[in-house]
Amino acid sequence: MESGTFKQVQKMLNGLQPAAIAHLLDSSPPQRRIILWRLVDKELEGEVLQELSHDVQAQILARMESSEVAAITEDLSADDVADILQHLPDQVIQEVLAAMSHQNRQRVESVLSYDEDTAGGLMDTDVITVRPDLTLDVVLRYLRRHESLPDSTYSLMVVNRRDIFLGILPLTRLLTSDPNMTVREVMDTNVVVLHPDMKDSDVASLFERNDWVMAPVIEENGRLLGRVTIDDVVDVIREDADHSLMSLAGLEDDADTFASVTRASPRRAIWLGINLLTAIIASSVINLFQDTIDKVVALAVLMPIVASMGGVAGSQTLTVVIRGMALGHIGRNNLTWLLSREFQVGAINGLLWAVVMGIIAAVWFEDITIAWIIAAAMVINLIFAALAGALLPIVLKGLRIDPALAGGVALTTVTDVVGFFAFLGLATYFYT
Amino acid sequence: MESGTFKQVQKMLNGLQPAAIAHLLDSSPPQRRIILWRLVDKELEGEVLQELSHDVQAQILARMESSEVAAITEDLSADDVADILQHLPDQVIQEVLAAMSHQNRQRVESVLSYDEDTAGGLMDTDVITVRPDLTLDVVLRYLRRHESLPDSTYSLMVVNRRDIFLGILPLTRLLTSDPNMTVREVMDTNVVVLHPDMKDSDVASLFERNDWVMAPVIEENGRLLGRVTIDDVVDVIREDADHSLMSLAGLEDDADTFASVTRASPRRAIWLGINLLTAIIASSVINLFQDTIDKVVALAVLMPIVASMGGVAGSQTLTVVIRGMALGHIGRNNLTWLLSREFQVGAINGLLWAVVMGIIAAVWFEDITIAWIIAAAMVINLIFAALAGALLPIVLKGLRIDPALAGGVALTTVTDVVGFFAFLGLATYFYT
Repeated sequence: MESGTFKQVQKMLNGLQPAAIAHLLDSSPPQRRIILWRLVDKELEGEVLQELSHDVQAQILARMESSEVAAITEDLSADDVADILQHLPDQVIQEVLAAMSHQNRQRVESVLSYDEDTAGGLMDTDVITVRPDLTLDVVLRYLRRHESLPDSTYSLMVVNRRDIFLGILPLTRLLTSDPNMTVREVMDTNVVVLHPDMKDSDVASLFERNDWVMAPVIEENGRLLGRVTIDDVVDVIREDADHSLMSLAGLEDDADTFASVTRASPRRAIWLGINLLTAIIASSVINLFQDTIDKVVALAVLMPIVASMGGVAGSQTLTVVIRGMALGHIGRNNLTWLLSREFQVGAINGLLWAVVMGIIAAVWFEDITIAWIIAAAMVINLIFAALAGALLPIVLKGLRIDPALAGGVALTTVTDVVGFFAFLGLATYFYT
Repeated sequence: MESGTFKQVQKMLNGLQPAAIAHLLDSSPPQRRIILWRLVDKELEGEVLQELSHDVQAQILARMESSEVAAITEDLSADDVADILQHLPDQVIQEVLAAMSHQNRQRVESVLSYDEDTAGGLMDTDVITVRPDLTLDVVLRYLRRHESLPDSTYSLMVVNRRDIFLGILPLTRLLTSDPNMTVREVMDTNVVVLHPDMKDSDVASLFERNDWVMAPVIEENGRLLGRVTIDDVVDVIREDADHSLMSLAGLEDDADTFASVTRASPRRAIWLGINLLTAIIASSVINLFQDTIDKVVALAVLMPIVASMGGVAGSQTLTVVIRGMALGHIGRNNLTWLLSREFQVGAINGLLWAVVMGIIAAVWFEDITIAWIIAAAMVINLIFAALAGALLPIVLKGLRIDPALAGGVALTTVTDVVGFFAFLGLATYFYT
């Protein structure tokens, strides 16, 4: 690039919001990404880094010195720094922490002590607290002494002398109440609090259902630790929702859309290997019936239809159940109802398309026996598919295996094996 | 139920937050749902209704009189009422509006005039506005005259005499600035605003990227119409993310997990019908090669493996591309790079598993020819799968067909047809 154009691009880039710069980096193939990153102004680097998808963040961090990481994350809030560091190797984290100022290190370490996917890992510690016995007038004067308040301050936290959480004082209530009243009189004590080890997906459900923008995090003993804000929860909601979609195809969530060939191939190769294994299992079922196929070649033509319809029907049930589980809809008390519904839907749709396919087969191969066989096999496979689609995710979850990741493969194995077995088994019975 | 237990259940239920009651209803099979709904206190009905998933909402509304709907939605904000009404038939909407108080009707009608999936449809009109020439002290006294401020008031809107939007005054800034300064001096004018016809998914991206909790909606001429708040945006994010997952299985997003058999069957039946058609297309490819299969039955055993591997590889690419499109990562300038990456990943993984499968086939059937044939067919199919997985969603989007809905079916058709054609075609060439 000529130096003039170069300067112009640089100026344009740094005129954007950090989030927009991050989006541009996320949308760029690896080489363009490295060039763009070099053009980002030093003082914007921290904010841009924080907005990048995890995978891209990791790639950029891998090229940096620990001291650089410490410098550019200096102005970020503790939870955002912790979020960035959590994806680095342990040794690098220690180096970065060592390079930080004492105060920053303490703040970040307190967040890092919690698992990334808990309320503690999401929380930031930048909270304005007030005592219950102050009058609102004093609180107003106290706030006015601040240059500015931390981002996303919608409420003040009320704590006693020992930092025990007592309630919240929304700014709106502070503004509409009589200044001579005390904090205790106007604070909201009917507050649902989070514990630091609560799972982040549960935190997200609470925010989503209750339309929260902020929630306090307190220790077992009632001491206030910090707060979780909606901007971090939105990321959790997006990642959780992405998770089912990506896992069903054997992909990592929050993966880089523009991962290089060497980064994209291995994970997909493993997934294809697992699928090869299950496909061979299904094929070995066909292998059992070689003699029958040898006699009636039309069976080879029709058998993929039975397997395919089972796969589609099963994946519909599987998707409904995986999503229902993610939304917290499915529990013991409604499982029987769900199974019975899926059984009925499977049976009805099985019968419907079995009749259609039976007629098509009869006309196509001018053979009424093959029509009956494919119709019966389809009904059997669609019922099995519905039950497998509903039960597999629940069984897998009980075994602590991610249903979204393993469910799809397990399901296709069932529908292929049952489909080929039913169809070729019935054919063997009727033709030999 | 005995009347005592009944009363107890009712008391427990109405002690919950409206969102928790809604979640309980969402998680219940139809009959239990109707019983629970009858137990909800009259004054909670509006709030509970608003928190229900759209599908469940519609079922409950279908059983209500227009006057009842008007009564229970009276205390909700205009955007929430509009959200509920939008799912009703036009005639019922008119009846409900007619049953409302004049003021409520006007507020709701202004939101209803915009498409449900636009910023206008998401917006509420409950905004506190101030003039730029007031001092902060006057603003503080003005706010104190309010009993309370509308939910999610984090900023005041600054407008001139003709309601033209000038900027926002965050409550935090109001609280930390000198009361003698004017609104004009402290307000934030560097505000990104929304236009009412902006798509809701674009609104969601903006909120997500910029960590907003609120954004003003203004007309072309600059007049302030209302604001969009994060709680409504979170619902959009969840629905958008759900959309890809559900559509790939041919299901409706925001569908009721506990839809009855008669509600769940038709949509799934249509999807199975479409799949039957594509499966028959694939089978008719096999039909072309009956003579070859008649000669070498092992082909029938192995051919589903080629098709299955293509399907899995293709759906990995498809998922990456559909998600990348939903996140706004993929555009013209990086499409070539993406295609080339997918081609390479497909070729590498194709070669890898072709070698493995070739060896397995050679050992299994003691036939070196069939080993070469399946290996070659797998490489061909995995490359086609990668290209189809990347191009199909882009082509479909260009044709204004939802890639998440049609992509999966179109892809399997390609990978089945190419897989069977390559494998059986090569076999015909070498064996006959």
